[in-house]
Amino acid sequence: MTPAERSSDAAQDARVSRTRADVSRVALKVLTDEGSDALTHGHVAELAGYSKTTLYTHWPSRVDLILLALDAIGDMPHQEPTGDLRADLIGELKFFRKAVLDYRLDQILAVMAQWASVDEMARVRDQINTDAQKPIRGMLSEVFAGTELEAAISMLAGVVACPTMMFGAVPEDDVIETAVDLMLRSVKGKRSR
Amino acid sequence: MTPAERSSDAAQDARVSRTRADVSRVALKVLTDEGSDALTHGHVAELAGYSKTTLYTHWPSRVDLILLALDAIGDMPHQEPTGDLRADLIGELKFFRKAVLDYRLDQILAVMAQWASVDEMARVRDQINTDAQKPIRGMLSEVFAGTELEAAISMLAGVVACPTMMFGAVPEDDVIETAVDLMLRSVKGKRSR
Repeated sequence: MTPAERSSDAAQDARVSRTRADVSRVALKVLTDEGSDALTHGHVAELAGYSKTTLYTHWPSRVDLILLALDAIGDMPHQEPTGDLRADLIGELKFFRKAVLDYRLDQILAVMAQWASVDEMARVRDQINTDAQKPIRGMLSEVFAGTELEAAISMLAGVVACPTMMFGAVPEDDVIETAVDLMLRSVKGKRSR
Repeated sequence: MTPAERSSDAAQDARVSRTRADVSRVALKVLTDEGSDALTHGHVAELAGYSKTTLYTHWPSRVDLILLALDAIGDMPHQEPTGDLRADLIGELKFFRKAVLDYRLDQILAVMAQWASVDEMARVRDQINTDAQKPIRGMLSEVFAGTELEAAISMLAGVVACPTMMFGAVPEDDVIETAVDLMLRSVKGKRSR
């Protein structure tokens, strides 16, 4: 390979990677602003300024487009631990609530559930939700273990997730704080507050 | 109106009502078996044995079809209260888990979230979820009130809803039982078990 060929390859790689980043960002915006039904090759191509053929070449199916959109989510912000368990749990649930609003997590959870029979989607969903739960799992593992830990994670996540998925509404501060107090009150022995 | 005309009107009403029941049942089956993307006028018409024109006449939009499918859900089974709060809460959460599996509530919650910007869908979603939560609200109101009651409902519903919506998995019996024990342990004063 001549230096000129190598440089042309590098240029092509950069182009593909820029296209992917552009389309991924636009696809996520369509998903969260307009819903998964609007996430079509034609619509995303138009908004991103690429040809439909380009999109079909790189991401042939609707599921490919949805997976590409999920790629753009990136790392969600989490509570910086302070060492005060009550404050940290409340802070983390407020970050979760903010992520629901900023990233339209209701739409994202919905579309991932809708396509979960596709193996790759199930894998990506597990990954996204496992990452999302990691901080709260870490905090709760200070006071719970085993089955109690699994139950407690779902219970606290449910304070934000249930009203979101069932009623399209996020909880007020006082509901989040009360849930954390109920949870900590149920800790056996010395830790109960 | 002659008696013959009246009888023909009655026959027509019966036909419309039978068509609605047929199409509603088939639409729900498509939604839960194949997902909301498969819920199209053409596909439902074919499976239900009606013409596409008939479907478009009665239910012009995709949202109309989805609302029609939700119509067929009917009353979900609930725990018959025994008076033992712990047993009743565990029983009710197990009914909720069974409904997730039998009715594919993950798909139903997902499609309702996806179309919730349509007013009628938001209304139907509120109705379905308010009805679904009624028994557990009644049970928990024996020991909680106000903000604690709201938090506790989301926390216990979350034990089934969170793993369902996040990982496509329902909780084992021991997680359900442990969640109820954690919840009841957090009840202030005499009721803590």
